[in-house]
Amino acid sequence: MELLKNKIRTHGKVAAGNILKVDSFLNHQIDAELMAEIGKEFYRLFKDEGVNKIMTIEASGIAVGCMTALAFKCPLVFAKKNKTLNISGDVYTCKVESYTHKNTYDITVSKDFLNKGDKILIVDDFLAMGNALIGLRQLAEEAGAEVVGAGIVIEKAFQPGGDLLRKSGFRVESLSRVISMSPEEGVQFID
Amino acid sequence: MELLKNKIRTHGKVAAGNILKVDSFLNHQIDAELMAEIGKEFYRLFKDEGVNKIMTIEASGIAVGCMTALAFKCPLVFAKKNKTLNISGDVYTCKVESYTHKNTYDITVSKDFLNKGDKILIVDDFLAMGNALIGLRQLAEEAGAEVVGAGIVIEKAFQPGGDLLRKSGFRVESLSRVISMSPEEGVQFID
Repeated sequence: MELLKNKIRTHGKVAAGNILKVDSFLNHQIDAELMAEIGKEFYRLFKDEGVNKIMTIEASGIAVGCMTALAFKCPLVFAKKNKTLNISGDVYTCKVESYTHKNTYDITVSKDFLNKGDKILIVDDFLAMGNALIGLRQLAEEAGAEVVGAGIVIEKAFQPGGDLLRKSGFRVESLSRVISMSPEEGVQFID
Repeated sequence: MELLKNKIRTHGKVAAGNILKVDSFLNHQIDAELMAEIGKEFYRLFKDEGVNKIMTIEASGIAVGCMTALAFKCPLVFAKKNKTLNISGDVYTCKVESYTHKNTYDITVSKDFLNKGDKILIVDDFLAMGNALIGLRQLAEEAGAEVVGAGIVIEKAFQPGGDLLRKSGFRVESLSRVISMSPEEGVQFID
């Protein structure tokens, strides 16, 4: 998606430790019109899959999730993150390891909002190791729902998550795939 | 806003302790089309104020904030919540007391995204005591920005926050104002 790649080139900042800072338009300040275009692009890619629900994870997935749900005219469900264990009988929950933050957290979704027969598209702002995505898919499948694939805004394609998921037969559509980045050279994409 | 009030009547659940559960459409599962209508309504109410930025607080403010930003064709900035103190020189921060959760947390916004001369509309899903709203306004004003008012989805009008803010001269527009609620009688609104 050229509009997105240009935004990353002009507004993204590469920091030490393979951190791509896009907080001026994606996850602190949000470019709502770009999010709306991203939602439409995910609709174009997945519109024949019978999707009836979008799923993401708080907080930085909510903006893109909401715009994708608007494009599909269906609800968004976002998983909540908990650092402390707080399991009650009425939620689906699993653990997610964060490569970036070097910690483990729980994600939970109320059982009211995931149902057998749901056809779910997962969306998220970033994909690196794929752990959050795998956790979300696990919650959906625990509910008996089907996950038709994932729509990702920025894939760190130099990390293995995306390709491992694709090789397992899971459909992952990334609107930008960063193959390398550095403070000196900026961001390079692959198609 | 009748569309919203009807949704609250039909899908809201009143729980013990003056809790209005609207997590089926507002803050866990999200009705994106309703959020888009809410965004348009805030635009109708504040369109003559020269707003160039929408501001809210994670996580449950992001959906309505994003749709409001889309209606205004301007960016959204959401404040981050931190339970632990993590102040660095490059953020505005203040403490917010949560009446609901009986705790105090820090909210922060990067100094990059609030500027002198900004005309800001704050939006949020709930208004009760008004502490979150006052905190957001404080961050904006610390940056030299002007806050033109607040757009609220659900005001708990039996709590004093909204009226205290209005009496101080601050413009608060609530799309629904709940005057009483109980598990037996459901939700009553005032205009």
